[in-house]
Amino acid sequence: MLSTMQDVPLTVSRILAHGERVHGAAETITWTGGPEPHRRTFAETGARSARLAHALRDELGVRESDVVGTLMWNNAEHVEAYLAIPSMGAVLHTLNLRLPPEQLVWIVNHAADRVLLVNGTLLPLLAPLLPKLPTVEHVVVVGPGDRTVLEGASARAHDYEELLAGRPDTYDWPETDERQAAALCYTSGTTGDPKGVLFSHRSVYLHAMQVNSAESFALTSADIAMPVVPMFHVNAWGLPHASFMAGASMLMTDRFLQPAPIAEMIEAVRPTIAGAVPTIWQGLLAELEQNKRDVSSLSRVIIGGSACPPSLMRAFEERHGVTLVHAWGMTETSPLGTVSYPPAGASGDEAWAYRLTQGRLPASVEARLAAPDGSFAPWDGATAGELEVRGPWIAAAYYGGADADEPLRPEDKFSPDGWLRTGDVGTISPDGYLTLTDRAKDVIKSGGEWISSQELENHLMAHPAVAEAAVVAVPDEKWGERPLATVVLREGAADVGYEELRTFLGERVARWQLPERWAVIPAVPKTSVGKFDKKVLRARYASGELDVTRL
Amino acid sequence: MLSTMQDVPLTVSRILAHGERVHGAAETITWTGGPEPHRRTFAETGARSARLAHALRDELGVRESDVVGTLMWNNAEHVEAYLAIPSMGAVLHTLNLRLPPEQLVWIVNHAADRVLLVNGTLLPLLAPLLPKLPTVEHVVVVGPGDRTVLEGASARAHDYEELLAGRPDTYDWPETDERQAAALCYTSGTTGDPKGVLFSHRSVYLHAMQVNSAESFALTSADIAMPVVPMFHVNAWGLPHASFMAGASMLMTDRFLQPAPIAEMIEAVRPTIAGAVPTIWQGLLAELEQNKRDVSSLSRVIIGGSACPPSLMRAFEERHGVTLVHAWGMTETSPLGTVSYPPAGASGDEAWAYRLTQGRLPASVEARLAAPDGSFAPWDGATAGELEVRGPWIAAAYYGGADADEPLRPEDKFSPDGWLRTGDVGTISPDGYLTLTDRAKDVIKSGGEWISSQELENHLMAHPAVAEAAVVAVPDEKWGERPLATVVLREGAADVGYEELRTFLGERVARWQLPERWAVIPAVPKTSVGKFDKKVLRARYASGELDVTRL
Repeated sequence: MLSTMQDVPLTVSRILAHGERVHGAAETITWTGGPEPHRRTFAETGARSARLAHALRDELGVRESDVVGTLMWNNAEHVEAYLAIPSMGAVLHTLNLRLPPEQLVWIVNHAADRVLLVNGTLLPLLAPLLPKLPTVEHVVVVGPGDRTVLEGASARAHDYEELLAGRPDTYDWPETDERQAAALCYTSGTTGDPKGVLFSHRSVYLHAMQVNSAESFALTSADIAMPVVPMFHVNAWGLPHASFMAGASMLMTDRFLQPAPIAEMIEAVRPTIAGAVPTIWQGLLAELEQNKRDVSSLSRVIIGGSACPPSLMRAFEERHGVTLVHAWGMTETSPLGTVSYPPAGASGDEAWAYRLTQGRLPASVEARLAAPDGSFAPWDGATAGELEVRGPWIAAAYYGGADADEPLRPEDKFSPDGWLRTGDVGTISPDGYLTLTDRAKDVIKSGGEWISSQELENHLMAHPAVAEAAVVAVPDEKWGERPLATVVLREGAADVGYEELRTFLGERVARWQLPERWAVIPAVPKTSVGKFDKKVLRARYASGELDVTRL
Repeated sequence: MLSTMQDVPLTVSRILAHGERVHGAAETITWTGGPEPHRRTFAETGARSARLAHALRDELGVRESDVVGTLMWNNAEHVEAYLAIPSMGAVLHTLNLRLPPEQLVWIVNHAADRVLLVNGTLLPLLAPLLPKLPTVEHVVVVGPGDRTVLEGASARAHDYEELLAGRPDTYDWPETDERQAAALCYTSGTTGDPKGVLFSHRSVYLHAMQVNSAESFALTSADIAMPVVPMFHVNAWGLPHASFMAGASMLMTDRFLQPAPIAEMIEAVRPTIAGAVPTIWQGLLAELEQNKRDVSSLSRVIIGGSACPPSLMRAFEERHGVTLVHAWGMTETSPLGTVSYPPAGASGDEAWAYRLTQGRLPASVEARLAAPDGSFAPWDGATAGELEVRGPWIAAAYYGGADADEPLRPEDKFSPDGWLRTGDVGTISPDGYLTLTDRAKDVIKSGGEWISSQELENHLMAHPAVAEAAVVAVPDEKWGERPLATVVLREGAADVGYEELRTFLGERVARWQLPERWAVIPAVPKTSVGKFDKKVLRARYASGELDVTRL
């Protein structure tokens, strides 16, 4: 029996119309590096979003489902693009300005961006690439920057403010189907081509509601939200859309991402909530040791992207009165997966143990742990499995590209019954807290059981003679895979034998997890971002380069 | 371009599975009148909901879209019905046990309930009606009560616990289309037949997300929510579903709705949030003056159903440290429409002025004010119109009944473009706060302008000689309608003429709003619930019964 409720689609234009009208006095506050930040009200943002949509449609010929790229910092104009482009029925494609140029070229061509909005300060990055971007017909330059670098380009150049000038303050936003694409964001995996995730109006809207729920980021019109996370990084974790929905003002960093200006803008504008990766907050902590700034307006800082060092969480809490909150997600999950507030009643060490997990699942994110034997692991806080998730803001596939008829559904990323395989291995406690321990590709699959390479490494590195340890899976005839332990000894440390290390480890993990293969190496090979490069280690083992001792 | 996100429906079974698994230790705490309340965990509730679904399907033959009624107090078993019945694909029909018997009969027959779950203590109410309820095949009795009154009934009688005993703890919940009906609730208007609102899985789910948003009721797993509002009253304002979604425990009153046990259970169980109509809280205030109880665990009490007297809000705040929060909604709006927290920065009298409005609109509830001339009134906080709303949890029509092919869409309730006409007249401020002043049927439509009868009444009743005043619209050749002022004079008050009252009013409202027609009456006729009965007054005027003076 069908219900008799209204069939109203969940669209970005609803968020825009609401923020503009009900929270017209809320502001996007963009740092300028000068004494006064730039302030633009949500009412103005609404009017300017309408002007932008008119310009894109009437002047640049943007039609429904056309892709419009942005190569921009976090600022008021980027918020306008976030709202106007999906609301008019086009697709917002945020470009990661930190990618290697050849990846940017690949991504723009794959998405077939017709128009690019670019901050003037980023023109030196874009201009040399334009000859390789045949789909780009228009480049719209936002803010100051030397436009002469665009001379000779085949794409037409425009100035953002000139384009908007004189156009109507309102736009008759189409009532888009909520399953239509609203935004596009590419993940840059370490292997293979980048993969595009095509968010829907529905997923953006529901995700913003979840961000605003009290159990997640809890935004209200009393907040000033500070997305330090870039707007090209999974929609800035949904903060711009969620802020517009809740009427929370926003503090935008623009290009001022160094610790000193971040400390300065927090003291000046007094945001109540921020979202950032741990490295930024590590830098901020160091800055605050040098130069005293009041950052106590921050009641909570959501930390995602990678696990947050406990020392960092404690330092901010004890020295600056700022609570860092762990969260987990990925581009394919929009990204809100889990947020780690301790449960009611937990305090002291128990609360800290909860806070160091990745967090608790919300109702819209179903999870299961795929064990190596094809079963699903119990939620006992101990049995590990690869995390698979399902929900209305989780990807079912990757964008196939402008020339493809079908989305991409690689087997290692999507289960046959449609769940996303996250590639993360971990446990879930009986009360729904997720703890991640490994990337699936780094786990050792030994006789139907999993051995956590990260756990073995952490224990080994606790031995006084060990500077670094990397554990990788190597093929084993009997067990499928077994761990190989490679260790870098501390300079001047007492001579230590493999037997001693093995005994040390044996006191900390189960016997069947103990490596048989050991090698001392001069240094652990690292990737360009400083992570252990286990591919290289496995290759060295395979080629016989390592001097391996078998115990 | 279609997105590549998962197409996962928003269903009640998702809420059930989530609460059961992630928040298994949360509890439904039901007051028993004895020293210890009854406690049931969400994990147990999940298992028992599965058993209930098995019993309904396998034993009672309930199929998809069948309607299952509940005639129950707020308690743990009613929560099981809330979760199990929609999750299995059937429709939960909550019956208002305060309705006159003939209305109950009409409603059960219109909805064609096949099964009724009834609290044993309510059997004396139900048993005499059963012969008039031919669609009811099964009566399931929950909890203590004399079952002998069911002897001789044609419907089969069952005991709830016996029915559940031994059935499986899990159920393979169907993946229902989110637009399917989940729940049915009838409004009892003062005129005409009751009207059924058929909520969808989608509307229940989105509404629960909104209840849990920080700007609305902000439930988290740290809360104990106390729905004093009955579960037969618009799904207890969504609190049971929202609590299960957020992992908030619940305190249920069962049949103990008198001020003394309510005060006792608040002190004993320490709920953090409650939802109730003002009269209940008025009674509680009086009780607390008599018997000291600690109710300070309540950080917020949502007040809806009718406007809350400011004196009540102030008394709770000042004497008991409890903040009463105004909210507005109706059965047709699921009911969450507006919630009245003052905006950031407001304090003192300004904050109080905001708190006395009906509240601010959330993103999913669009509003407009229909003016008498067919235009829409501006949001200036002054120009009134009839409130019309639109959104994913707002009704588009009423249920036509089991024998009807079409839903009911009366013109006075739904606009041609599909918005709900609320029948409430009021203003909206530039920052999206709604203030209701009148019911549309009580407004005087005079020459294309509206005159608020309530405003005139309030001013008249401020005159020292006036005990009561009721203003109604009467036909007028020139203006369409004009106000007729009827006044009840205070006993022993100085003689007062109409001229004086008119002058008194003229100092407070615009000249064109002043009534020309006046009558002194011995008492204002009242409805059975004590409201002014303006129908009767208009009829008396039309029949010439009133002694009217024209100024």
